[in-house]
Amino acid sequence: MIQLNEHERAVAAHLKHLKDQAGTHSPSIFTLAEKIPDLHIRIDACFLSNPYATDLFLDYLKRELIDTGKMRDVLEFYPSQNAVIAEILASCLHISPDNIFIGNGAIEIIQAVLHRYAGKKIIVNIPTFSSYYEFAPTGTEVVYYQLSKDNDYALNIEHYCEFVHNQNPDTVVLINPNNPDGGYLSFETMKYLLDKFSSVPTVIVDESFIHFAFEDDNYSLRSVAELVQEYPNIVVVKSMSKDFGIAGVRAGYAVMKNDRVKELLQNGFLWNSSGLAEYFFRLYVREDFLSEYEKVRVRYIKETQIFFSQLKTVEGIKLYPSLANFGLVEICDGSNAADFVSKLLIAHGIYTRNCSDKIGLEGEFVRIASRKLEENIIIVNAIRELMS
Amino acid sequence: MIQLNEHERAVAAHLKHLKDQAGTHSPSIFTLAEKIPDLHIRIDACFLSNPYATDLFLDYLKRELIDTGKMRDVLEFYPSQNAVIAEILASCLHISPDNIFIGNGAIEIIQAVLHRYAGKKIIVNIPTFSSYYEFAPTGTEVVYYQLSKDNDYALNIEHYCEFVHNQNPDTVVLINPNNPDGGYLSFETMKYLLDKFSSVPTVIVDESFIHFAFEDDNYSLRSVAELVQEYPNIVVVKSMSKDFGIAGVRAGYAVMKNDRVKELLQNGFLWNSSGLAEYFFRLYVREDFLSEYEKVRVRYIKETQIFFSQLKTVEGIKLYPSLANFGLVEICDGSNAADFVSKLLIAHGIYTRNCSDKIGLEGEFVRIASRKLEENIIIVNAIRELMS
Repeated sequence: MIQLNEHERAVAAHLKHLKDQAGTHSPSIFTLAEKIPDLHIRIDACFLSNPYATDLFLDYLKRELIDTGKMRDVLEFYPSQNAVIAEILASCLHISPDNIFIGNGAIEIIQAVLHRYAGKKIIVNIPTFSSYYEFAPTGTEVVYYQLSKDNDYALNIEHYCEFVHNQNPDTVVLINPNNPDGGYLSFETMKYLLDKFSSVPTVIVDESFIHFAFEDDNYSLRSVAELVQEYPNIVVVKSMSKDFGIAGVRAGYAVMKNDRVKELLQNGFLWNSSGLAEYFFRLYVREDFLSEYEKVRVRYIKETQIFFSQLKTVEGIKLYPSLANFGLVEICDGSNAADFVSKLLIAHGIYTRNCSDKIGLEGEFVRIASRKLEENIIIVNAIRELMS
Repeated sequence: MIQLNEHERAVAAHLKHLKDQAGTHSPSIFTLAEKIPDLHIRIDACFLSNPYATDLFLDYLKRELIDTGKMRDVLEFYPSQNAVIAEILASCLHISPDNIFIGNGAIEIIQAVLHRYAGKKIIVNIPTFSSYYEFAPTGTEVVYYQLSKDNDYALNIEHYCEFVHNQNPDTVVLINPNNPDGGYLSFETMKYLLDKFSSVPTVIVDESFIHFAFEDDNYSLRSVAELVQEYPNIVVVKSMSKDFGIAGVRAGYAVMKNDRVKELLQNGFLWNSSGLAEYFFRLYVREDFLSEYEKVRVRYIKETQIFFSQLKTVEGIKLYPSLANFGLVEICDGSNAADFVSKLLIAHGIYTRNCSDKIGLEGEFVRIASRKLEENIIIVNAIRELMS
């Protein structure tokens, strides 16, 4: 079992205090560095993003904006309006611009969609990303569907369909791959579910981690966004923060029926992209960028899967099946998650996500993000040492 | 009278088409450059911002983020949450963080506040910034208070107070200085109005252009934001785009009673600042930056006032009194505003704002932004040539 010494207990208490202040999200490493200056943070394995994609974006940014002086244009002037950026994306997504809504990060879209379309009753599978129940408007009943631990938190399709059928909700939420466990529903399964839910007014499908999932040897990407004409009740939410490693840029989009896009735009969201977000969206549709991006996407998936296979060999922990860029790890030696996170942070400088605030998880859980190959090796070795 | 040749008429028609597409806002110079490639745009006098402040911000950005490699942190990681940034601003604004709400540009705040607090009836003075009536929620009656042309579109205080009293609205909106005319209400007048409107549930005061106004020889800034405890019904909206010349960064804030900040945050807006916006907000409270900023603010005000005094000498136009960074210009020689804007753009490369879509203006109006000193001289000379 993990034991903390007196100093470590003091830091752990400080850490808990900062976490409590940050609500259902983790304090950033910058907040930690500021508030607990004697911490030496080496690896942020709390943070879910592809670091190679960040490298790629920064490379383009340097060449095209910084070195050319065009950075000024991006910062000084108003960016394009929502619909203009939707039009830019349309060609690349093979979806009509009328079906695309641009968000200041996915979180803005989640908020907007819940507030407008959640209806009287929403079903949220737990454990999950907390915003889906936290941002449900007053008057919306949130019904939790508990993913079964015995089934490794994977969705039991028939049981779930029956549950939805009996509950008769206005909205269901499917995060694919799910956060915090990384469980993935195949494209065919998703289609099966969408067929079953054709009479549910709104089916939110959050594909923020879909770039890390794959079904074949080519790591091909399968999104249900292209099915929006066939299933007009879907709202596909897509963050760009994770796959492109640019959380600070705040960029996301959603695909939904055109009436809804129109309605949202009638209520604002006119200039919700920054100049840098617009630059990113314009980059995102360029063939040269996309072919470079595909390389770093596949590289990161491969390294992530290696990371998972190594984590599985560590005794005293259990890794749950994941096709996202993070693993849900259960601590099975009787230690608690807070001690695990504190010790890993203080003794090894590795910051991981304590999941004890996640509803629907029974046991001691942490979520560990995949980082660069060499960092992943350090993480595995540190956890092995911690658990020995 | 302004005459267009055949080529100019074709470009003017193209321009009109782009304007119609952009709704009640102007197409950006980038859209113009893209869609009408043979235009040579030299000066964007449609764009309302202090170019010297942009220089200053870019200078800091280069030294502190680009040259140090810290740009990566700003783009890769999640920025701080809304309340954390509010806390940063609090010290500089001398206002409690509980009273500060951070926005992804002022426009997000306008939208959020109107949707939540506009109530059944809102009074909007016209001419004005269109978002205040466009974003009023369905079910809110927008009552226009017409500013009198005979009074140079200045607010007739007693007449307005009586109007508000008779209408008994839930919300009134005061933009100070007003857009598109730049009319300014002094701090004492504002206090007088706030006293009169103590029983109006919500008084929105948009101070997005207040950094360009002044009441004394020191060009001191007078904001009503600090009166939020005394007048808990006020919502002071502040864009940072204009005074700091960073529209592309998307940064704004509002000051309002703490219940409202709490309520808004309960409904989202958690991570609505980008990493660059957070960097800006942190800069905004630093003494070294603020003392540099104060210099460029005063310089720009002085140059703007010189610009206005020169514009006043041009025959065939009338400049309305302005303490903002733009002037409302009426074309009095019988030409129409569209021809004026087209000719100035095509023949001189100067882009100005045709105000013919602004409700509440009777006549042919354009709005002309103050730019750098040398550009302002070019603008005045071009208009003089145009009108001769």
